[in-house]
Amino acid sequence: MHEIRLASRPTGWPTAENFDLAETEVPAPGDGQVLIRNIYMSVDPYMRGRMNDTKSYVAPFEVGAALDGAAIGEVVASNAASVPVGAVVAHGLGWREYAVAAADRVRVVDPAAAPTLSAYLGLLGMTGLTAYVGLLDIAQFREGDTVFVSGAAGAVGSVAGQIAKLRGAKRVIGSAGSAEKARHLVEELGFDAAFNYKDAPVREQLRAAAPDGIDVYFDNVGGDHLEAAIGSANKYARFALCGAIAQYNDTAPPAAPRNLALAIGKELNLRGFIVGNHGHRMPDFLAEAGAWLRAGKISGRETVVEGLANAPEAFLGVLRGDNTGKMVVKVGDLPTVRS
Amino acid sequence: MHEIRLASRPTGWPTAENFDLAETEVPAPGDGQVLIRNIYMSVDPYMRGRMNDTKSYVAPFEVGAALDGAAIGEVVASNAASVPVGAVVAHGLGWREYAVAAADRVRVVDPAAAPTLSAYLGLLGMTGLTAYVGLLDIAQFREGDTVFVSGAAGAVGSVAGQIAKLRGAKRVIGSAGSAEKARHLVEELGFDAAFNYKDAPVREQLRAAAPDGIDVYFDNVGGDHLEAAIGSANKYARFALCGAIAQYNDTAPPAAPRNLALAIGKELNLRGFIVGNHGHRMPDFLAEAGAWLRAGKISGRETVVEGLANAPEAFLGVLRGDNTGKMVVKVGDLPTVRS
Repeated sequence: MHEIRLASRPTGWPTAENFDLAETEVPAPGDGQVLIRNIYMSVDPYMRGRMNDTKSYVAPFEVGAALDGAAIGEVVASNAASVPVGAVVAHGLGWREYAVAAADRVRVVDPAAAPTLSAYLGLLGMTGLTAYVGLLDIAQFREGDTVFVSGAAGAVGSVAGQIAKLRGAKRVIGSAGSAEKARHLVEELGFDAAFNYKDAPVREQLRAAAPDGIDVYFDNVGGDHLEAAIGSANKYARFALCGAIAQYNDTAPPAAPRNLALAIGKELNLRGFIVGNHGHRMPDFLAEAGAWLRAGKISGRETVVEGLANAPEAFLGVLRGDNTGKMVVKVGDLPTVRS
Repeated sequence: MHEIRLASRPTGWPTAENFDLAETEVPAPGDGQVLIRNIYMSVDPYMRGRMNDTKSYVAPFEVGAALDGAAIGEVVASNAASVPVGAVVAHGLGWREYAVAAADRVRVVDPAAAPTLSAYLGLLGMTGLTAYVGLLDIAQFREGDTVFVSGAAGAVGSVAGQIAKLRGAKRVIGSAGSAEKARHLVEELGFDAAFNYKDAPVREQLRAAAPDGIDVYFDNVGGDHLEAAIGSANKYARFALCGAIAQYNDTAPPAAPRNLALAIGKELNLRGFIVGNHGHRMPDFLAEAGAWLRAGKISGRETVVEGLANAPEAFLGVLRGDNTGKMVVKVGDLPTVRS
């Protein structure tokens, strides 16, 4: 089997040299464990932070060891009655072709309940839950709010904006990194307005797209996007701070937002979060998102890259913004359908 | 009578030339109005923002017109039965010797219930309420929290720190602008630790004073103080953003905090507020603060400047940090005691 290891820690933007495709033995499951053949794995911006040797909310990756992250696969050997051979499971050991995991650390999913298995990494997985929790619980979205989502063509942002519309937003505005993505937001995902942040200062474009200000900001970007959102915020606006992809590869700290003191007079609430502590909302989320999906009201567009060997390039693409919607890597064949 | 008018709008730090001491007629109260002879008036950092011609949460001062702000005085003529001659009232028309106000816009206070009348501008006024609301409602202070207060020798900060101790903080740390003030915080106000922010970077001094991190930050300063607090924040720390005195006179926006993205992984909650919308908490606050005051558990030290003509200099002193505790200006004689 193959796995991708961290060859060295990047300084600034990572490159292919920071990754190593290694061959190793297929591990054997011990008591209470299962052997999983991976089918899809997730590449996410937050993984950039784990490549640094700094204390954070998840442990850093180790140089010389395989990376990890969300994946979905088929159980091919089992020493746990609760998770039999043939089960399809979501788990945390991506970046490799086979993984051994404790049965109580995997989540059995129903392949028939999703349009594709990869949806369990995106729309019906942690990505979708992140959007749901950030919008509803952290930013306390209310019907009639005007909502701004940055990185809105990305995995989380595209779901956050769609949920806002489905839940009765007055107006949803998205920013993205190309004219094509901005068009996708408006024409396919139902955003009311979208702009390419490379066209002109975010502050100006946001002010034009939200002349009456914003009530909720879902931040995936940080930096000048956050500064622009503070500037356009209405009184009592609520911000969910979910990501800061603009600065993940910075070697010097960003100067923005320079206008944070406006939060005093506007009585803003800025709240950072990570989805890990909100797993209890998964059932609520799946009930609501599943219904939207079945009714064709929500789109979970994905960008799929083929082959484990291309996973590093897929990850670099996420950092560059190559993806529209969730970026996943297909690392193995789909399961054989059993009757 | 005399009043202080805004002669011109300052750029950067204001100077005496921006103020004008003018003589004018004592106004006559109309129906439902009272004539007040002012005794004390408040000078507060937030007034600096009102000297700019920018939209904010309170209207800007007008060039050529008298400034205004919290004051306390004695009613000397009344056309309102609810507020008779002789009543002592808190109101919003400071910076002048006499003021006419609608009776329903003044608050009658009990001179006997406060150590000095000026306390109604500080410890028992909006200043104290700001500290109370910021700590308890905005920062959601909980017993056992470690609390950092910046500008802690100032009017609001000194009360916030004392309330934290009285409500069961594990540890309260304050920053101030001189060694003498830092000593005052520890020796007279019961702070566990305090430092002079001019001695060394705030980040280093805060880390030394709070080696186990902070759970609550009460921000009166902004800039590098806010950046240091984000750095020292424990998971789920709550920040009350009350003021940003470090930058009120800046002509260029501040670069700090550069580490705001840490709010994501630490799941911080940063919440700005102004006390104006929290007046409903005044009764709770006065009940609690009054009891502390009678028991000698809370100190409301003031810096008193004599004479309306010196009000501009007192205000400049607040911006420089000359005061310990609340800065007030005595603009008239105390009321004659009536039996």
